[in-house]
Amino acid sequence: MQKEPYSIVFLSDFGYNSHYPAICKGVIFSINPHINIIDLTHHISPFNITSANLLLKNSFLYFPSNTIFLCVVDPGVGTKRKGIIIKAFNRFFIGPDNGIFSFIENHYIEKIIFIKNKSYFLSNISNTFHGRDIFAPVAAFISTGTPIENFGIPLKNIKRIKIPTPTFKNNTIYGKIIDIDHFGNLISNIEKEFIEKHFTNNKKLSATIANNPHFIPLRKTYSSVKNGAPVAIINSFNLLEISINRGNAEKYFNATLGTPIALTTR
Amino acid sequence: MQKEPYSIVFLSDFGYNSHYPAICKGVIFSINPHINIIDLTHHISPFNITSANLLLKNSFLYFPSNTIFLCVVDPGVGTKRKGIIIKAFNRFFIGPDNGIFSFIENHYIEKIIFIKNKSYFLSNISNTFHGRDIFAPVAAFISTGTPIENFGIPLKNIKRIKIPTPTFKNNTIYGKIIDIDHFGNLISNIEKEFIEKHFTNNKKLSATIANNPHFIPLRKTYSSVKNGAPVAIINSFNLLEISINRGNAEKYFNATLGTPIALTTR
Amino acid sequence: MQKEPYSIVFLSDFGYNSHYPAICKGVIFSINPHINIIDLTHHISPFNITSANLLLKNSFLYFPSNTIFLCVVDPGVGTKRKGIIIKAFNRFFIGPDNGIFSFIENHYIEKIIFIKNKSYFLSNISNTFHGRDIFAPVAAFISTGTPIENFGIPLKNIKRIKIPTPTFKNNTIYGKIIDIDHFGNLISNIEKEFIEKHFTNNKKLSATIANNPHFIPLRKTYSSVKNGAPVAIINSFNLLEISINRGNAEKYFNATLGTPIALTTR
Repeated sequence: MQKEPYSIVFLSDFGYNSHYPAICKGVIFSINPHINIIDLTHHISPFNITSANLLLKNSFLYFPSNTIFLCVVDPGVGTKRKGIIIKAFNRFFIGPDNGIFSFIENHYIEKIIFIKNKSYFLSNISNTFHGRDIFAPVAAFISTGTPIENFGIPLKNIKRIKIPTPTFKNNTIYGKIIDIDHFGNLISNIEKEFIEKHFTNNKKLSATIANNPHFIPLRKTYSSVKNGAPVAIINSFNLLEISINRGNAEKYFNATLGTPIALTTR
Repeated sequence: MQKEPYSIVFLSDFGYNSHYPAICKGVIFSINPHINIIDLTHHISPFNITSANLLLKNSFLYFPSNTIFLCVVDPGVGTKRKGIIIKAFNRFFIGPDNGIFSFIENHYIEKIIFIKNKSYFLSNISNTFHGRDIFAPVAAFISTGTPIENFGIPLKNIKRIKIPTPTFKNNTIYGKIIDIDHFGNLISNIEKEFIEKHFTNNKKLSATIANNPHFIPLRKTYSSVKNGAPVAIINSFNLLEISINRGNAEKYFNATLGTPIALTTR
Repeated sequence: MQKEPYSIVFLSDFGYNSHYPAICKGVIFSINPHINIIDLTHHISPFNITSANLLLKNSFLYFPSNTIFLCVVDPGVGTKRKGIIIKAFNRFFIGPDNGIFSFIENHYIEKIIFIKNKSYFLSNISNTFHGRDIFAPVAAFISTGTPIENFGIPLKNIKRIKIPTPTFKNNTIYGKIIDIDHFGNLISNIEKEFIEKHFTNNKKLSATIANNPHFIPLRKTYSSVKNGAPVAIINSFNLLEISINRGNAEKYFNATLGTPIALTTR
């Protein structure tokens, strides 16, 4: 079987009004002029490691084998936090060892490399932009076929952050909002599997948000309620989501990251 | 003559702070790792079919033959609205059959296919993200040379939305604002041809906005009035546009989509 | 030595909510379907030639030889301002002759061409969108190997804008904020070299902003102060920058472009 070509998927909290992502791309193209680079997003909220971890978890399998994920959400840049390469799922993950790769469980990890070999870095290393000076050139050299062992020394473990999980008591699932998208859809940490474990019949379920008395019916599509009405769905990442059909749930419920969500029979 | 290579032009209302476009690209690259993907825009205002239709109309001819337009503005996702492929102008248009392709007049359409063949879809189809599950893989398979007949069954007609057209009475053209760009330029539905049909001499024309008493001279360039002054021009899409030279007409006139625009001799 | 392939780096003030950049790309791909296009940024603040000049200065060297910089910040579009191509640093710079290329000092310039040859333009030239009609096709034809002499006639000089420089008196460097990034970092016009010329010991320096009495210590990394505390650093472009560790200095200090910055011993 032919190996799939390398490509680089780029995630950061640099923002699209920034030229930082383009400069990293310039560094990459200087090393590998023929590589394909895809922006996953540069709109991770600044320094939000939890959000980057969630997004990577829900996205990486849609990219082919040999994809190199260049992940720069790096509040500790310039300190002693490590830079790492993880090989897992036939893919490569490059970035700071600060928890952004927590979604990769230990038994899926084939190899971890602590990036040390300065011969692959830019010649001047800043204290504020390792995306440009270290991570981008390392990603580029991997894409030219450099074995990851060349970049440093093996590690046993990566740093992990605690991801909030939902709970179940009194016939109710309690979770919270962990992401809000461009449409104002409120995405919770309540997974489809967790719902199916605790309730046998989806059709009788309703969600509530914080102290709002509104019961929001769980349906299959946004359009199964009338325009402007709230609806709960299992979204395309198998997470419980609260939406307004053709509207904006963030504004409707005045909700923010962390707002409690509950799901119960009614 | 050599056929031009396929490329995919991607339009959606997902927003740039979203990872949804990148996930669709991952799906596409998993099928065709060598395809060129260009973001037309992901900043269509959410669910705005009229705006997507206008933007496609003004853009598609600037892309070469064999371009595949992947168009995901899809408020009815998960309902019985059809997914379609249109072949027209030696290009391909893929998306929901909800009116976003209204600009393609019937006599230009070579073929319409109602997308039905699940063997080209991702294996799990969500109710909320057909961009990823259906439209992206279909676009990718077209780019590998799959004949569009393979994806489903022929249709006779597409759904069309009513586009507002300007009117002429009492020596005045009446239209309205249908788009506002990043510079705050106010773009009307009044086409150059419509103006030339009703007025023989452009040089005597002035525009007005809503009930604002200001007469705005029709000129050839923004810079033909002084900095900060209003000016009307025929813009690069042959539409009447109201601007402020080196300023922002949206803020200046407090204008919004739908605000009336008039053009008359003075 | 093999020549590096051409690629096009695209800078404008069109904004990412705009389809204007994509239309320029369509024009380019119609001429050269295999060219690699990288968005440097489209979020230059509208008409801000000074900002475009600074960003190009800090970015261009990270892109390989033979890169073509397509630079469209063009408030004078449609007037008699010239369109130019500059060959310098083994790279090409295309755009209006309005000062955006001021960072290229005369002795680095190999050639300047005043773009005149209409046979390389789109057939209809608007008065408002030379990015699409002139600059994009010229960039595309350069990328196919067309000698730049073909596009017009040589010029001796380019237009230059005056860039504000810092001053030194009473043992203090006085500068100002010239850029604010997505993280709210305040970037000044005070270069590392200027600091080293006037102070021999970095470790004793502190910055101040406008009339704020706070002394901000100059450190090596953001994280050398506690979370939420102000810090001054020499950033990755060798400019003095004021930041809040894991926070937003723009909001903290209520600072804007032009706000005075000072640096002194203490």
